[in-house]
Amino acid sequence: MLHTLIVALGERSYPIHIGEDVLTNAELLLPHIHGKKVVIVSNTTVAPLYIKKVKALLANSELAVVEVILPDGEQYKNMETLQTILTQMLESRCDRKTTVIALGGGVVGDITGFSAACYQRGVNFIQIPTTLLSQVDSSVGGKTGVNHPLGKNMIGAFYQPQVVLIDINTLDTLDDRQFSAGMSEVIKYGLLWDREFLDWLNDNMTALMARDKSLLIHAIHRSCEIKAEVVAEDEHESGVRALLNLGHTFGHAIETAMGYGVWLHGEAVATGMVMAAQLSQSMGWLSEEDVDYTRAIMKKANLPIEPPEEMTSVQFNEIMSVDKKVLDGVLRLILMKQLGKAAVTSDFDHQALQDLLSV
Amino acid sequence: MLHTLIVALGERSYPIHIGEDVLTNAELLLPHIHGKKVVIVSNTTVAPLYIKKVKALLANSELAVVEVILPDGEQYKNMETLQTILTQMLESRCDRKTTVIALGGGVVGDITGFSAACYQRGVNFIQIPTTLLSQVDSSVGGKTGVNHPLGKNMIGAFYQPQVVLIDINTLDTLDDRQFSAGMSEVIKYGLLWDREFLDWLNDNMTALMARDKSLLIHAIHRSCEIKAEVVAEDEHESGVRALLNLGHTFGHAIETAMGYGVWLHGEAVATGMVMAAQLSQSMGWLSEEDVDYTRAIMKKANLPIEPPEEMTSVQFNEIMSVDKKVLDGVLRLILMKQLGKAAVTSDFDHQALQDLLSV
Repeated sequence: MLHTLIVALGERSYPIHIGEDVLTNAELLLPHIHGKKVVIVSNTTVAPLYIKKVKALLANSELAVVEVILPDGEQYKNMETLQTILTQMLESRCDRKTTVIALGGGVVGDITGFSAACYQRGVNFIQIPTTLLSQVDSSVGGKTGVNHPLGKNMIGAFYQPQVVLIDINTLDTLDDRQFSAGMSEVIKYGLLWDREFLDWLNDNMTALMARDKSLLIHAIHRSCEIKAEVVAEDEHESGVRALLNLGHTFGHAIETAMGYGVWLHGEAVATGMVMAAQLSQSMGWLSEEDVDYTRAIMKKANLPIEPPEEMTSVQFNEIMSVDKKVLDGVLRLILMKQLGKAAVTSDFDHQALQDLLSV
Repeated sequence: MLHTLIVALGERSYPIHIGEDVLTNAELLLPHIHGKKVVIVSNTTVAPLYIKKVKALLANSELAVVEVILPDGEQYKNMETLQTILTQMLESRCDRKTTVIALGGGVVGDITGFSAACYQRGVNFIQIPTTLLSQVDSSVGGKTGVNHPLGKNMIGAFYQPQVVLIDINTLDTLDDRQFSAGMSEVIKYGLLWDREFLDWLNDNMTALMARDKSLLIHAIHRSCEIKAEVVAEDEHESGVRALLNLGHTFGHAIETAMGYGVWLHGEAVATGMVMAAQLSQSMGWLSEEDVDYTRAIMKKANLPIEPPEEMTSVQFNEIMSVDKKVLDGVLRLILMKQLGKAAVTSDFDHQALQDLLSV
């Protein structure tokens, strides 16, 4: 059963196809390829598992296929890897009609999308996300980019793909830790936007963690739908889109302080969401039960709920001061007015924040 | 006397102000700055001459000003310099409301624009071009980017400024060779689009080369007007905009082969335009007189009309094969149907091209 969702962005609108066996259906891919060259960017973990399937989809066409295989890990999402991709594209004589396919998780998607955005000032781009995290997060919204030693995702572009293909069967090979990290972002959509979906997740978490496919398709579809709804309202993050960063200011600080790749993004965000819930409680917006509910659903998904012991409040403050949501020197945080309803605010209790960071 | 031109690009439209004393009029700059931080990117040649003037315009505001001074030269228009700018912006805690000002020639404009395009996925950007070349070329059209060892401008973005300020007095300090290189692009607009303007340039070249200010203002205004007209029709270079690359395929090959910065861009393009005229003659489109006219106007502007002796046809072919105008493996060239009317074509006489490259 194939689910299709349209991300409505005017002339930059694109479809997301979600289902089993999406990667055996060439009709979903080929109409979106126009030139004579396709570059598949993947990594050393995903390529051995799925690149043959993607190449098989292209086999009956007259397309020349170039493969760029990156090392696996957030620590490679940097300008050097970007250079590697661009150099290989130039060496392969890629022109402006070339289509670039990202086959892998969020790191591959972000860096490949940014490569497509800046190669000859922009070529076509297709996403085939193979992790739960990338399926529900980086496949919607057009955020591409790389990390800088001084901050995550500080260099990049807003750049939309032609199509996103989500084959749920690729989750069969995802390890448990990565799967949990993806579930963190699924839970996020419930927490920030949709209490009903949050409760559905809470009720079905055991089956979801056992990777029940029809439940997973629903969870991914609803997550993409929520993100698409938010992004369509605010493509360049001047308003409501910032809500999608629930848990991310704290989470990015953890990732940056620990070194990229030590904590997984979803793990750091899970802890960040619990911290946001705690601060929301100190604002009187959430009850203690709400915070306990937040902790409990994270635990069901095998996610961490406490920041790393070795991290100091000095580190948190230092890294959070360059967060992209800082405007005119003022830190803005995403907190929860209630479960299922997040809000951006710079008007939080600063002492409560410092107390939270000092635990 | 202030000339103002609007580049019409819908919600990305912006004004270009041209005149004397533009850099003493804060009213032209301040309304385009919104955040509390301004980054001025310039180079070691231009900064000592003009950065104080720009800072004086900002002095009565509460803006914090960050200066990033680059080494001077096309050879620094690369990913390393981009990194330098982005790192300094991060170290200075620049946020998404930061405005980045490019103060200098085309290299400073291109790399600064690309930095603005990819810093936190895009911040505001203002151009203050100080060379004739950048005033008539890179200040209109939103092309930003850096070079790659395998090709010029291969990495970049289409990104529009908020405003462009052209102060004609900055040309007083431009050396003769750079001035000629800029005149090459002015002549280009006549050759590709406007026979009447071409003849006006031919008639007034002696006074223009003596830097008569009112004539220069007209030449710059008309050049920007032509470019704006072309760009408004075709922002992302899928059609008519390619005409602006008259002389550039040959010119880029010369620059790349000789090493960036050895031949100036305008010098290489001047020779490239003569080569395009010669090939147009072999197609029967231009007469021998037309080619002589093209050579003569370049000579009046002290521009080279022959490719470097040490360059081989093998080098030309190799470098031209990765030109951004190559589509599906087929080289397209900009040739002249007549003086003042260029056309893109892949249907040229390939033997004539090889003969031309082998001289």
